[in-house]
Amino acid sequence: MHRTHTCGELRISHTGQQVTLSGWVQRSRDKGSMLWIDLRDRYGITQLFFAESDTHPQLMELARSAGREYVLKATGQVIERVSKNPQIPTGDIEIKVEKLEVLNASQTPPFTIEDQSDGGDDLRMQWRYLDLRRNPLRNNLMLRHRIGIETRKYLDSLGFLEVETPYLIKSTPEGARDFVVPSRMNPGQFYALPQSPQTFKQILMVAGYDRYYQIVRCFRDEDLRADRQPEFTQIDCEMAFVEQEDILNTFEGMVRHLFKTVKGIELDTVPRMTYDEAMRRFGCDKPDLRFGMEFQDLTAAMQGKGFGVFDQAQVVLGIVVPGCAGYTRKQLDELTEWVKRPQIGAKGLVYALCQPDGSFKSSVDKFYSPDQWKAIAGQATAAPGDLMLILSGDDLSTRRQLSELRLLMGSRLGLRAPENFKPLWVVDFPLVEWNEEAQRWFAMHHPFTAPKPEHFSYLGTDPGLARANAYDFVLNGVEIGGGSIRIHDRTIQSQMFALLGFTPEEAKKQFGFLLNAFEYGAPPHGGIAFGFDRLCALFGGQESIRDFIAFPKNNSGRDMMIDAPSTLDQHQLTELNIALTNPS
Amino acid sequence: MHRTHTCGELRISHTGQQVTLSGWVQRSRDKGSMLWIDLRDRYGITQLFFAESDTHPQLMELARSAGREYVLKATGQVIERVSKNPQIPTGDIEIKVEKLEVLNASQTPPFTIEDQSDGGDDLRMQWRYLDLRRNPLRNNLMLRHRIGIETRKYLDSLGFLEVETPYLIKSTPEGARDFVVPSRMNPGQFYALPQSPQTFKQILMVAGYDRYYQIVRCFRDEDLRADRQPEFTQIDCEMAFVEQEDILNTFEGMVRHLFKTVKGIELDTVPRMTYDEAMRRFGCDKPDLRFGMEFQDLTAAMQGKGFGVFDQAQVVLGIVVPGCAGYTRKQLDELTEWVKRPQIGAKGLVYALCQPDGSFKSSVDKFYSPDQWKAIAGQATAAPGDLMLILSGDDLSTRRQLSELRLLMGSRLGLRAPENFKPLWVVDFPLVEWNEEAQRWFAMHHPFTAPKPEHFSYLGTDPGLARANAYDFVLNGVEIGGGSIRIHDRTIQSQMFALLGFTPEEAKKQFGFLLNAFEYGAPPHGGIAFGFDRLCALFGGQESIRDFIAFPKNNSGRDMMIDAPSTLDQHQLTELNIALTNPS
Repeated sequence: MHRTHTCGELRISHTGQQVTLSGWVQRSRDKGSMLWIDLRDRYGITQLFFAESDTHPQLMELARSAGREYVLKATGQVIERVSKNPQIPTGDIEIKVEKLEVLNASQTPPFTIEDQSDGGDDLRMQWRYLDLRRNPLRNNLMLRHRIGIETRKYLDSLGFLEVETPYLIKSTPEGARDFVVPSRMNPGQFYALPQSPQTFKQILMVAGYDRYYQIVRCFRDEDLRADRQPEFTQIDCEMAFVEQEDILNTFEGMVRHLFKTVKGIELDTVPRMTYDEAMRRFGCDKPDLRFGMEFQDLTAAMQGKGFGVFDQAQVVLGIVVPGCAGYTRKQLDELTEWVKRPQIGAKGLVYALCQPDGSFKSSVDKFYSPDQWKAIAGQATAAPGDLMLILSGDDLSTRRQLSELRLLMGSRLGLRAPENFKPLWVVDFPLVEWNEEAQRWFAMHHPFTAPKPEHFSYLGTDPGLARANAYDFVLNGVEIGGGSIRIHDRTIQSQMFALLGFTPEEAKKQFGFLLNAFEYGAPPHGGIAFGFDRLCALFGGQESIRDFIAFPKNNSGRDMMIDAPSTLDQHQLTELNIALTNPS
Repeated sequence: MHRTHTCGELRISHTGQQVTLSGWVQRSRDKGSMLWIDLRDRYGITQLFFAESDTHPQLMELARSAGREYVLKATGQVIERVSKNPQIPTGDIEIKVEKLEVLNASQTPPFTIEDQSDGGDDLRMQWRYLDLRRNPLRNNLMLRHRIGIETRKYLDSLGFLEVETPYLIKSTPEGARDFVVPSRMNPGQFYALPQSPQTFKQILMVAGYDRYYQIVRCFRDEDLRADRQPEFTQIDCEMAFVEQEDILNTFEGMVRHLFKTVKGIELDTVPRMTYDEAMRRFGCDKPDLRFGMEFQDLTAAMQGKGFGVFDQAQVVLGIVVPGCAGYTRKQLDELTEWVKRPQIGAKGLVYALCQPDGSFKSSVDKFYSPDQWKAIAGQATAAPGDLMLILSGDDLSTRRQLSELRLLMGSRLGLRAPENFKPLWVVDFPLVEWNEEAQRWFAMHHPFTAPKPEHFSYLGTDPGLARANAYDFVLNGVEIGGGSIRIHDRTIQSQMFALLGFTPEEAKKQFGFLLNAFEYGAPPHGGIAFGFDRLCALFGGQESIRDFIAFPKNNSGRDMMIDAPSTLDQHQLTELNIALTNPS
């Protein structure tokens, strides 16, 4: 071992001991006859001290030659520091170095290895091994490790078995696009990488494993955004002989265990809200409950007063932004432009400033009398000093747009503190949703989700009305978990595939093994999957997952450090029985 | 929850309690007015009891209708059994059923769900969910879960961080064949699935993570054998600032921890043997130490006595098989045929029966006098009653052949009991080995393994002499772990690539990021990887890994349950910019 202690370990009680440390040069201070080096490893920083008057004349020279990020091995005595540094746990001591070895030199890094780096995104991705040396990233990955350990500890204690499911599986056209893998031994055939182990975990329930989990990689070949990676990690779980209530309790327990052990936070009972209620109150199926600004339905109150835009709208919905009556025309114009951006897509924004004196000032003053405003504000429970923001249009679009605006205002008012955790179960999701483009029903969760037993009859008549025993775990406006009670009956599963537009032949080709399995004693079962990357990011107080993944890909799906993907040799293509149709 | 207890939980102390159980029908016994059903779940079997005289007339009929593998939910009172079954933990009680629900019916399974199944391999693979219901497979997967949990517990306690490395990486021509994944977003380019996270774990050491591990899937597109799967799992580990001794101690500790916690076995200190010694004494770099039969070098003793075959051989090597002097001519002929099979490839087998009366009977009697045999037997420490088996030829082939014969004889004599665990470290592996066909040196472990510092000079002169700080962990003749101290210096790594026939351009294209990383403060580091599937199989007392993997593939790389790989739709190929050259 190239050390007796780590760089985070030594305290005043070690004074007088002979020690050896190894680590990286964080910085050095050269005062001519004396020189200090901050030596860094994963565990901390310890100060090395070199004095000219030493019996080792070359020592000082060697120490002076060690630039930033050099790897050093230093032996010497632990001594008490003259000027202590209370900021770091090792700040009471330093090492009076007697022997120094340069284990490896370093070129000057392209950016600084500090909490706030001067490297841009591309540079940091390309030199990921240097970026990973920075405290914030190391803390993120240590947090991720801890959450993984505690997740397994909790699930193991409840008798869940971690069972590894295969990564080389079969491509299915339903859902997102698959990554595929040509099979050399089966020419013309391909494996697919799993988008999730869904069918395998159901098979494990049929096989009697009762309680399954896996922290598992999943793959989706979709166009990428900031918070989406082609490969991502799930905490994937399934239980047999359970009902929805059992799953909600078990996994609320898991989240509570993680908060307690990892963050030291005792979580309250997690509230529950139906999908319909979430859409009504927050216009969104993953409401951020850290702040209010609930939707106010002003349709009845504001229609029929001569304002054509509202009169023609399906709904008129508003939110009350507390204490913002002082917003300037410029600020309000900026909000209007914001909601009119293509990403939001509103046609316009109506505002009403509830003045401290009880009067109102709005963008549609000519259609509404002061008394009418008073009634509207009263219904919306807007108080003097508040700002009302109102959108109108068709129900679904308006809710989506106002939800975005609500989140923006929440952020602007500082109501979305990362360390204020507000979890929520959203339940009773619709079973299917209609896709205009494809002119067919799509599964809202996935094709294996069971309709509520009392809604079976809707399948043949009005599938859109059917609700499922499907649930999402939402934390601070982010969906971090989702699951459902599954179908375990072959007839219902076949009906479901038919509803989703599968011919019996297609269903058999894609999912024949599952339909078959349902004929050999499938128990009632259900499960859930948590997005591990997102869970870690939220625990770390961030929304972006990228710095909670050791080696993420950029928005073009490239690993910039190793420069992948890359071209293959022709003989590899030949062996795989494939050719490029569009060679680059 | 569809149960109050599991089928493995109820004891005599529960007598009188009202309970609900759910599970599968293992078997039923119908005595007309009384009927018993063994209800099975993951946790055990509990007997259900139905009596005709009940107040529920349809109950008996329903119970009678439930065939093998039906899923039942039964409610009733726990009663003491008249005839107890001491074989099972629940054997003192049964449930007097008052309410019964068939949760799901089952067709008759294609094979029996018993410890010894009547299903053949293909049938069992195709109906894997039924095979997985059998006790032996369930016990295997539960054992695997337990080993995984204890591995993480041990490594976590030593400060190892589990860091997930990417599955979509870059194809490298060195080593085995890669599985590749076409990139839709980068036309003409491909990801590769990792054969191991080797370079990433080294990068993590450069990034200062100090101690890394991962239980991780690896992929190799190689022709398959019984004990090889296209995807397999490794316990992958790396440490910084360590020397070989630190790694051996740390992972000997891990194996000891696993034996203690999982098997209740206190392991002795693991002996060590150099590669050269293992080859000399056992003809193999993973000797099975459960029995002796060490190699006896009889070259000097048996050459020059007129037997041409031996005289022309590079070596004459024998083993002494204890107590087998009674082998018949037929048995000896069968052994001769066995070593002459193409898989072994010996030209012939010389035997000598050391008769109880002190005389010898051999297949080459005319070349050796009784006194000469006596001397030979003396040198080989063969006693009266033993059988000497002797092979000759070139050194490497003869050792390999005799090693196979040794293992065969060990098995035949019952000296290889699965539950007798004999671990071993094999150390000081050669750095490279010459490949006649390719006419170049290949890395014995991998291209990142460091030569022993005192052997640097061989690289330029006689690379075959260079030994590496590389080590294998061997258990009962199976290599379950292997690793090395790595190169952390760019110059040596470049030299190594050159020795392996990489041009500087190739090295840069494949491993440029690693060579670059070595210029920014790479610490000394080393690691090891354990084959998780094999480790689990050995702990389970078996040599085949297939039944320790939930969903294995067959020897054609097919998952027979889901019928993968399979063909793709043309539009998928078009999107991926590839075409089939050999459509099936």
